[in-house]
Amino acid sequence: MVTKNDIKFINSLKHKKFRDLNNCFIVEGKKSIKEFIDSEFKLIKLFSVNSSCFKELANQFQIEYNQLKKISFLNNPEDHLAIFELKKTKPINNENLIIALESIRDPGNLGTIIRSCEWFGIKDIICSLDSVDCYNPKVIQAAMGSISRLNISYLNLGNYLKISKSVKIGTSLIGKSIYKSNIKSENSILVFGNEANGISDELFKIIDFNLSIPRFQKHNFPESLNIASSLAIILGEIKRKEI
Amino acid sequence: MVTKNDIKFINSLKHKKFRDLNNCFIVEGKKSIKEFIDSEFKLIKLFSVNSSCFKELANQFQIEYNQLKKISFLNNPEDHLAIFELKKTKPINNENLIIALESIRDPGNLGTIIRSCEWFGIKDIICSLDSVDCYNPKVIQAAMGSISRLNISYLNLGNYLKISKSVKIGTSLIGKSIYKSNIKSENSILVFGNEANGISDELFKIIDFNLSIPRFQKHNFPESLNIASSLAIILGEIKRKEI
Repeated sequence: MVTKNDIKFINSLKHKKFRDLNNCFIVEGKKSIKEFIDSEFKLIKLFSVNSSCFKELANQFQIEYNQLKKISFLNNPEDHLAIFELKKTKPINNENLIIALESIRDPGNLGTIIRSCEWFGIKDIICSLDSVDCYNPKVIQAAMGSISRLNISYLNLGNYLKISKSVKIGTSLIGKSIYKSNIKSENSILVFGNEANGISDELFKIIDFNLSIPRFQKHNFPESLNIASSLAIILGEIKRKEI
Repeated sequence: MVTKNDIKFINSLKHKKFRDLNNCFIVEGKKSIKEFIDSEFKLIKLFSVNSSCFKELANQFQIEYNQLKKISFLNNPEDHLAIFELKKTKPINNENLIIALESIRDPGNLGTIIRSCEWFGIKDIICSLDSVDCYNPKVIQAAMGSISRLNISYLNLGNYLKISKSVKIGTSLIGKSIYKSNIKSENSILVFGNEANGISDELFKIIDFNLSIPRFQKHNFPESLNIASSLAIILGEIKRKEI
């Protein structure tokens, strides 16, 4: 059973303000919910059309599909919707390769980046304070459960990079070719800028050097690659050398 | 000036049925519109809040921003909306590396794929008939003008691959590592399957061999990479060998 208050409450969790206020967020879909249950995140409430998928869960509520449609953020809801408690971030491990994101705006991009980061063994992602929130339902959806296992911190990126002793590697259209660079995945921070504007002048000054992905045709189009695709190519190029 | 009929007509172009019926589609944003004007596509009508951006265009109409909001598919419209005529596809050049997409569903994924394909010098993309239409406004948006320069064909993919003499390379979770394969970008077709299900059994039988991207950590998560990120990594890996 879904009450009017449940609907109102869950809909409010679309917004960061209410996620922070209530210290919780939404995960949808059987696979992702299972991954969050198996992680360090604490399940608050699970609404299931088919409760046999999650046996022996005390805080599970059987609902009808038309009720799920009222609380889901998806056009085609996937049988389950869960509320999880927000989790405090852990200390950042500076010995590894860290991904830094400045002013990322698109939730689909952030989710896809998080998913690729996990694939390539990244443990820590740091985001500027004005980046899209990783508990945004669209980020959760695109990240396919990876948020449950990565440490994602929001902080003043300029200050963090200034103090950090790691090698700060920028990504831009005018950097050194990734195919001619020898980047190691230790004590390094790989920085990606905003989708439309790239890395800000403020951060650009702090960066040790810049990497770019060569364009494989003669004209100057497209102007750039999608940020999540760029990250995937660059992480692939760094990690392939470790095989 | 935007009439009620304009609003009704433009809104109908969200749907493939009406794009086909009227032989036209919508492009938004100054940069993308400029790229389509500079290509082989024919401009039918341009609605501009700021008509000084496109001087000496006969079929340009100055409108107010609140009128643009009524016809735009974007939450934050970008000053210009154009109607272009659909274009017939050209013959496929089998000598190059061709990208084949089976049952791609997400318009953002297709747009990002098209953008990456152009970056890596791909000329031809072939899509199964049930794939999302490349003139879908969300595809146009994510592809950032690249659709104006690529040849994108919709066809019976099974039949095409059966007849084709090119090397058919699949992409899956159980293929040969891309880092241990020597793929050439001539006379080859690189096949990507549906986002959720991968390549269908029907196509799997026709494929010569499969490639996969190794996972760089010990557990089995995430289950897969985003399709557009996978394509970017694989194209990067194929093209880097040509430098």
